[in-house]
Amino acid sequence: MADNRPIGVFDSGIGGLTVLREIWDLMPGEGTVYFGDNGRAPYGTKSKSTVIKYSLQNMHFLEQQDVKMIVIACNTASAHAYKALSEKSDVPVIEVVTPGARCAAGTTRNGKIGIIATKGSVNSGVYKEAVERFAAPGTKIYQQACPLFVSLAEEGWWDNEVTSLVCSRYLTPLKEAGIDTLVLGCTHYPLLSGAIRKFMGDGVTLINAGKAVAQVVRETLEENGLSCGGTQEPLRRFYTSDEPELFEEVASPFLGRGLPSGTLKYNTDRFDV
Amino acid sequence: MADNRPIGVFDSGIGGLTVLREIWDLMPGEGTVYFGDNGRAPYGTKSKSTVIKYSLQNMHFLEQQDVKMIVIACNTASAHAYKALSEKSDVPVIEVVTPGARCAAGTTRNGKIGIIATKGSVNSGVYKEAVERFAAPGTKIYQQACPLFVSLAEEGWWDNEVTSLVCSRYLTPLKEAGIDTLVLGCTHYPLLSGAIRKFMGDGVTLINAGKAVAQVVRETLEENGLSCGGTQEPLRRFYTSDEPELFEEVASPFLGRGLPSGTLKYNTDRFDV
Repeated sequence: MADNRPIGVFDSGIGGLTVLREIWDLMPGEGTVYFGDNGRAPYGTKSKSTVIKYSLQNMHFLEQQDVKMIVIACNTASAHAYKALSEKSDVPVIEVVTPGARCAAGTTRNGKIGIIATKGSVNSGVYKEAVERFAAPGTKIYQQACPLFVSLAEEGWWDNEVTSLVCSRYLTPLKEAGIDTLVLGCTHYPLLSGAIRKFMGDGVTLINAGKAVAQVVRETLEENGLSCGGTQEPLRRFYTSDEPELFEEVASPFLGRGLPSGTLKYNTDRFDV
Repeated sequence: MADNRPIGVFDSGIGGLTVLREIWDLMPGEGTVYFGDNGRAPYGTKSKSTVIKYSLQNMHFLEQQDVKMIVIACNTASAHAYKALSEKSDVPVIEVVTPGARCAAGTTRNGKIGIIATKGSVNSGVYKEAVERFAAPGTKIYQQACPLFVSLAEEGWWDNEVTSLVCSRYLTPLKEAGIDTLVLGCTHYPLLSGAIRKFMGDGVTLINAGKAVAQVVRETLEENGLSCGGTQEPLRRFYTSDEPELFEEVASPFLGRGLPSGTLKYNTDRFDV
């Protein structure tokens, strides 16, 4: 039995598009409805209670679009709100922390793993706990909040001298600790991976959870008999809580291509939260 | 006749506290109710329609606190929403763009004025128009959006090597243009004034509109017979749309002192927008 309902994906804004592109690449037949809460972004500096409140609203909006699954494509929302959302949802809820954590635990050879994320994610401790769950006993975990990275990614300063200097400020403790694996624990950070790799050196593996999340999405669809038939032209719909024009202006580098456009089916609509 | 109702002040978050402190210093007897929309901050990257919507909500909330005046202590909200708010308000509405613009026009000697602000403020053109309204004919105006400055101010990196480098990136065109006056057109920027001054040199006067705004507040209160009696202990109330604890953590450097606390009258409450 094929289930041709779309997958619902939300993020605080555009960062989750780095997850969406991996879902498209792995499951080109699946339809998707993406909601970016640009009107209230970013989430990384906001409190747990606020992020839970917004995430529940976002999920309810996606449920109204008749989605068969909810993907929380935002690390901060995953860290703070996954439990609340999975308790209240009738469809499977996927978060982005666990896939990245499992991947990091399976990658490290020297048992020293770094995690970089927003203040909210770091302070929640959720990422550290997730890595500990999968890692060998004795694995050392080093966390670092990197608040400036989001602004650098959105400013398009992916690899200039400012970015190098900020990398040096934030990442020196992780480098000195001798980590060999670094989790990019925020969906904005993959855009800075060139600068991060340059600073950390080739001996450090960067973990971008996007691909691992897409795998979990596929497995969960299959296990629950929710995969699509694969013959339809898949839905590619976007909603944002700020102006659609603003969304389209900044989306391309995150999505790795322009937003699909030209027909009503591929539009970017405004949803007032 | 004394009017002992408080003055209502709002900002997207904490930046407006740099205006509030000037109001307190100039009019120590006036009560104030401050609302920081931290749950949806920042405004500088959001669209005009969204900023107007949020600003109207913030104003209505302050009106419910029985304020005698509304101060829009946020440059982006002033640029986008002043017109909408002043049309709908029963009490005087004060914005922060005009006082800074007038001050800059009266300060320049060589007729070259720089304006640094958020993307939203710069794109609105409101700042440029305001300076043109007060400046001598032929005055040259140079605008520059400085999106990273807000993150640097909130990260506490007010004057380090990253800040110097970012100043150099953003401000070199203004320096090369030979401006002698620079408007700090965002309430976060006064925290970076040390680094900005160091880069621009002593020949450039930095305009922080806070003091000029407080003057306009006083004049407007007097003209409308709204000044307080001055014998009461003034109200100092704070509201935020995120967790009060988070507000208090980041507020002090902007306010220049700790939040007044210890009594119910001086509390920080949450208001869900």
